[in-house]
Amino acid sequence: MARTITLLTDFGIASTYPAQMKGVILARCPGAVLVDLSHDVPRHDVRTAAFMLASAAKAFPQGTIHAAVVDPQVGSARRALAAEAAGQTYLAPDNGLLTVVLGGGPDRPLPGRVVSIENRSLFRTDVSSTFHGRDIFAPVAAALARGTPLEDLGPPVASVQWLDVPAARRDGGSIHGEVLYVDPFGNLVTNITGDQVAGADPSRVAVHVGGAVIRGLSRAYSDVPAGMLLIYIGSAGFLEVAVNRQSASARLGADIGTPVRVGCETS
Amino acid sequence: MARTITLLTDFGIASTYPAQMKGVILARCPGAVLVDLSHDVPRHDVRTAAFMLASAAKAFPQGTIHAAVVDPQVGSARRALAAEAAGQTYLAPDNGLLTVVLGGGPDRPLPGRVVSIENRSLFRTDVSSTFHGRDIFAPVAAALARGTPLEDLGPPVASVQWLDVPAARRDGGSIHGEVLYVDPFGNLVTNITGDQVAGADPSRVAVHVGGAVIRGLSRAYSDVPAGMLLIYIGSAGFLEVAVNRQSASARLGADIGTPVRVGCETS
Amino acid sequence: MARTITLLTDFGIASTYPAQMKGVILARCPGAVLVDLSHDVPRHDVRTAAFMLASAAKAFPQGTIHAAVVDPQVGSARRALAAEAAGQTYLAPDNGLLTVVLGGGPDRPLPGRVVSIENRSLFRTDVSSTFHGRDIFAPVAAALARGTPLEDLGPPVASVQWLDVPAARRDGGSIHGEVLYVDPFGNLVTNITGDQVAGADPSRVAVHVGGAVIRGLSRAYSDVPAGMLLIYIGSAGFLEVAVNRQSASARLGADIGTPVRVGCETS
Repeated sequence: MARTITLLTDFGIASTYPAQMKGVILARCPGAVLVDLSHDVPRHDVRTAAFMLASAAKAFPQGTIHAAVVDPQVGSARRALAAEAAGQTYLAPDNGLLTVVLGGGPDRPLPGRVVSIENRSLFRTDVSSTFHGRDIFAPVAAALARGTPLEDLGPPVASVQWLDVPAARRDGGSIHGEVLYVDPFGNLVTNITGDQVAGADPSRVAVHVGGAVIRGLSRAYSDVPAGMLLIYIGSAGFLEVAVNRQSASARLGADIGTPVRVGCETS
Repeated sequence: MARTITLLTDFGIASTYPAQMKGVILARCPGAVLVDLSHDVPRHDVRTAAFMLASAAKAFPQGTIHAAVVDPQVGSARRALAAEAAGQTYLAPDNGLLTVVLGGGPDRPLPGRVVSIENRSLFRTDVSSTFHGRDIFAPVAAALARGTPLEDLGPPVASVQWLDVPAARRDGGSIHGEVLYVDPFGNLVTNITGDQVAGADPSRVAVHVGGAVIRGLSRAYSDVPAGMLLIYIGSAGFLEVAVNRQSASARLGADIGTPVRVGCETS
Repeated sequence: MARTITLLTDFGIASTYPAQMKGVILARCPGAVLVDLSHDVPRHDVRTAAFMLASAAKAFPQGTIHAAVVDPQVGSARRALAAEAAGQTYLAPDNGLLTVVLGGGPDRPLPGRVVSIENRSLFRTDVSSTFHGRDIFAPVAAALARGTPLEDLGPPVASVQWLDVPAARRDGGSIHGEVLYVDPFGNLVTNITGDQVAGADPSRVAVHVGGAVIRGLSRAYSDVPAGMLLIYIGSAGFLEVAVNRQSASARLGADIGTPVRVGCETS
């Protein structure tokens, strides 16, 4: 069965750069099933890409190959990585993009199998210094899809670059977190997990963000009138803040990094 | 032969939400052919989605499955529907999105076969309350593509929600209609059908819209100089108003709902 | 093996027009592999489309069929063309869109095999006057993908429309060119080829554009600090001007047509 290859980039959907990656893949693996995760990652925003990759990859079947190219250092000495984790394979520059998907960090052992992509026989003949998505990541993805084992891409690595992805922390009766991602609806995805909130009485959960306090976990946007703030456990498994039919980001002036505090109100 | 599944949403092409739907479909129906109708339906605009779905579906072959998810009430008690009509299958929330494609209305018998999607064994294990596109519509589309009959999705329904989609009406020598849809070129698609205009002498047709009068049906944009207004029967079968190389919406200050009147001028 | 069909249009990714082309293709050639080159060519900008088509097509395998529809004269007497060149097939209106991909010009013999698409038995039954992408180019692409030979589309043509695509010219110690394309990062792609610059000492190359002088060819964006201008041979084989992590177009007020001069500085 043909394997699925996904692409995540900041190339912009208006450009032909994503298509050029696909042309290279189809030339080398004609039956590959190609899916765009997104080509509109905010430019050079590796942190947002790391979140988008991890939340999207969960929906894909075992054996999927994800090529994620948000790569401000393209052409420099930064390595290109291939990693296997939870039955899927990830290709990305070594700039922290795999932090969320590997669940790693500087103080933890390297999770999964990770190699440095160095086998030039798999690359395009002329590798540009500015478009490794087309010249390295695409042909390597095609090689994996055709059965090339991870080990053939290059030597295992002992450590990789990690982003400082903050975990929400508990402090007395409160959980202190921040906004991880703002989706195109303006919904605020926080780094506070559904599990961290699971113990509390849903009606007593109170979220403090951007000067507002939102009380009581909702299930659906339409639980509140249009234009009202709400909090809920979102589809990525994190606490989210939204405004029914409007943008919570605009309403609260909140963006990635904005602090979010969860308290549990007593009567 | 693999069946085609199309997706129409207001999730925004920048987000990974459409890709998450595709991941779920490919996990359950690896050979499915996936086509994006659009992911940039104006947010929560069920009426525009209904028009876009109907005009796009006509181009697809028999057997195509269309999953249309513009769903401001997601997570509430609104039902999810599956409908067969004219050899194609449609999945959508019960909010009127199927109005145009089913050609239905409150005073007409329910056209086609329509069921309420309730067979939870076809859903993802954990159904979120905010992303039924991924957790219900995608796996159900995959099930249909693999041959699950419509009846297995849930019980037939006796009635559904309809939008009030106005039909153009004749009044003496005039046809009174309105703008149904504004395409990305700024062309105004009206609810006046080509058939309604077919009897008239093309050179004598006059359209009144936004304070302007445009006389004489054209065939092509370039029939008039750049910057000039024109009227023609568009590719969706409706009377359209355009400006050659510019936006008629901007020129006329016209949007969805703007009244359009067709007169037939006598010399 | 299924053939790949690419689509390049100015229809806008928000519209369902690209999807309607895909529906027609899949109805007539169910196994076709469909790839979007881009649907966000600037409206009616045939020149930019010509560059995008040529630079993207290079990445695709032999046998690929490219349907490029940027067609301000749709519905007029302008012809529709099919051309074979370098093992790939191109479909486009006869408005100069194939200029770069055919490498042609008014003073050169017509390169490759080019026919006028006139075989109406291959078209959709009802051909609209405004959407030949769906009604002519899509079904003809499907016919080619199923094995219809080029000759069956229509008669060979003796000449076609060419754009005036300026070539960079050498004048004494300088090369005089201009900006051909601005990519979504704001990078300026010039018409000065890597070959034209290849003889020079990279450290002595100096580019004059928009009032700025940039000295020394770089290899990668990150060779210079964030916010600094750089010059390099880009992934399409042309000299490019960029600002690391920012937009050179915005910085220099440069756009398509802006003059670019390369000098070779002596100490």
